[in-house]
Amino acid sequence: MSGISITPEPPYYAVIFSSQRTDGDKGYAKMADKMVELASGHHGFLGMESARDEGLGITVSYWDSLESIQEWKENSAHKIAQEKGKTGWYKNFALRVCRVERHSFFEM
Amino acid sequence: MSGISITPEPPYYAVIFSSQRTDGDKGYAKMADKMVELASGHHGFLGMESARDEGLGITVSYWDSLESIQEWKENSAHKIAQEKGKTGWYKNFALRVCRVERHSFFEM
Repeated sequence: MSGISITPEPPYYAVIFSSQRTDGDKGYAKMADKMVELASGHHGFLGMESARDEGLGITVSYWDSLESIQEWKENSAHKIAQEKGKTGWYKNFALRVCRVERHSFFEM
Repeated sequence: MSGISITPEPPYYAVIFSSQRTDGDKGYAKMADKMVELASGHHGFLGMESARDEGLGITVSYWDSLESIQEWKENSAHKIAQEKGKTGWYKNFALRVCRVERHSFFEM
């Protein structure tokens, strides 16, 4: 899931998840892979971009509607991951739900 | 400029810039630092979050309005950097302008 997502014409929606991890894996990598797999197959999913360095991780997922984002938020496996995120994996995070108004792509 | 930005209550705006670099620095790091410095002092700037790993870099900047984003886009030093980005630094990128509808923050 690395790389740039080719998304359809706006408007569509983006969820920006910026986080700082705690030390140690504690089951995070396995659960993160599972969440990517589940989200990718979810109704309304348009793509995902992710990068992490020593300071911060940013994952942006793209969706067709606020309804699809809400359904994914309420997915039961995702709810378990959200809880584990708060009790062990993340020191802190910000989650932002946005409406994409315009976009442009460049390829050399 | 690492870390999570504490932004004001929505609505506000986010610019998501996802990119894949070409090989070698070619003056990129110095210009990137300069752009962060310039953007941070620009009218309407609310914060910036950035992460890069071997696959992808994601920088999200936050702004008070579409007008401020437009002014920053047209800043003359920034225009030079945009041009260098297209002619040397980036293999490809996506730029998305979004309206942040809601957000939440978590701190352990």
